[in-house]
Amino acid sequence: MLSIVLIGTGNVAQQFYEAMGNKNGIKIIQVIGRNKKKLTPFANCPETSTDFKHIYDADIYIIAVNDDSINTVSQHFTNKSGLVVHTSGSMPLSVLADSVRRGVFYPLQTISKERRIDFSEVPICIEAESSEDYELLRELANTISDQVQTMTSEQRKSVHLAAVFVNNFTNHLYHIGNEICDEAGVPFKILNPLILETAKKATQDNILNAQTGPAVRNDKLTMKKHLALLNNKDYRDIYSVLSNSIRKTHEKKL
Amino acid sequence: MLSIVLIGTGNVAQQFYEAMGNKNGIKIIQVIGRNKKKLTPFANCPETSTDFKHIYDADIYIIAVNDDSINTVSQHFTNKSGLVVHTSGSMPLSVLADSVRRGVFYPLQTISKERRIDFSEVPICIEAESSEDYELLRELANTISDQVQTMTSEQRKSVHLAAVFVNNFTNHLYHIGNEICDEAGVPFKILNPLILETAKKATQDNILNAQTGPAVRNDKLTMKKHLALLNNKDYRDIYSVLSNSIRKTHEKKL
Repeated sequence: MLSIVLIGTGNVAQQFYEAMGNKNGIKIIQVIGRNKKKLTPFANCPETSTDFKHIYDADIYIIAVNDDSINTVSQHFTNKSGLVVHTSGSMPLSVLADSVRRGVFYPLQTISKERRIDFSEVPICIEAESSEDYELLRELANTISDQVQTMTSEQRKSVHLAAVFVNNFTNHLYHIGNEICDEAGVPFKILNPLILETAKKATQDNILNAQTGPAVRNDKLTMKKHLALLNNKDYRDIYSVLSNSIRKTHEKKL
Repeated sequence: MLSIVLIGTGNVAQQFYEAMGNKNGIKIIQVIGRNKKKLTPFANCPETSTDFKHIYDADIYIIAVNDDSINTVSQHFTNKSGLVVHTSGSMPLSVLADSVRRGVFYPLQTISKERRIDFSEVPICIEAESSEDYELLRELANTISDQVQTMTSEQRKSVHLAAVFVNNFTNHLYHIGNEICDEAGVPFKILNPLILETAKKATQDNILNAQTGPAVRNDKLTMKKHLALLNNKDYRDIYSVLSNSIRKTHEKKL
């Protein structure tokens, strides 16, 4: 039985709490957060606390707090013998205090409060400093996910950047598409099958071959018309830099 | 029974041929294309032809050719009494020759040869110049799709532009994500669950609320680190204009 102390009350902490709470082989013995009110969703945990001075002894401490606070929070564990991990994609293992047993436990998924995550399909990227700790993290990750991947801090930084492109930026393109439809008086949901098929295709087929549209054909007239349709200068900039990059990518390919 | 003549041999023509070929209430009586070799996939049609001078009489002529050729091709139908439609998202109805009964039959999906489309979930955007012709197009569209939407040429132009954002541009972001993973020696497929969840979320939840990442938090340090990681100038430009637009969109919201 792995004993876990969870630090943090945000989206990641809550989703881990839900996912790990009912799993055999794991017991979350304590949840710690600065804000008493935000501990409410964890009320059925054996212990919730705002006091970083009374942390239970555990096998693994999961620090699920803002990137900027990870180092400060990790200082509270310098007297503990358990493994201390953070859950951030963009922060290296070394952001944790030198004197603790350090690791990373990064779930590669877009996580919000409202939407319950099925972790079984979420890759968990783990990093540790000893084979023993890798084993411990693999044991923890396997209880919630079928996809566990070891990864160095450098690699995780790149994966996090790639995630910004395929998640953050893609979501903004959906937002722009939504605005364009709203302005034209057409229901945005008409684009749903296209959005889903585009994503599905990327996971199954060759992405370069799937590229279509005026930019890959270098169809200047259509691109000019499109730019004239866009009232928002930022959207025109986005249209131009992306079209330019698509054209150059596919010229190289030829 | 609706009789159909299909003009064109590209992806759209082939997918329509497959989708309509076995449907009750429709009969494709002829397929016409300039290139004899490209007519091979249509061999089991009653008639294939390269001769635009001997077009059969039909209820509907579907012109599925390049945008630039629609007008020229439509001139061959000036003596026909059937309805002549094109299948382009970006072209107005008026691109068809003045003297024909004109309409538009635009499938809103990314269509390639390799990937068989399930049209039942593909919105078919129709436009015509009389209620009788709308009925005819609705009848045709209903045989292959559950989502039929009437749309003016102006609206279709906007929807096509929105489709460029959610399909063409999104696909290029996937490509960039793929490159970043390749360079880091991490399998790109690790991003598959994130790609699919991001798309699914956009079709189900509020897109603005789903926006996460350094740009929406205006986390300048992370953005600076990300830019330093990108070797390709075009990718840095894409990162900057998208981050800038995300920040401004969410500042407005506050």
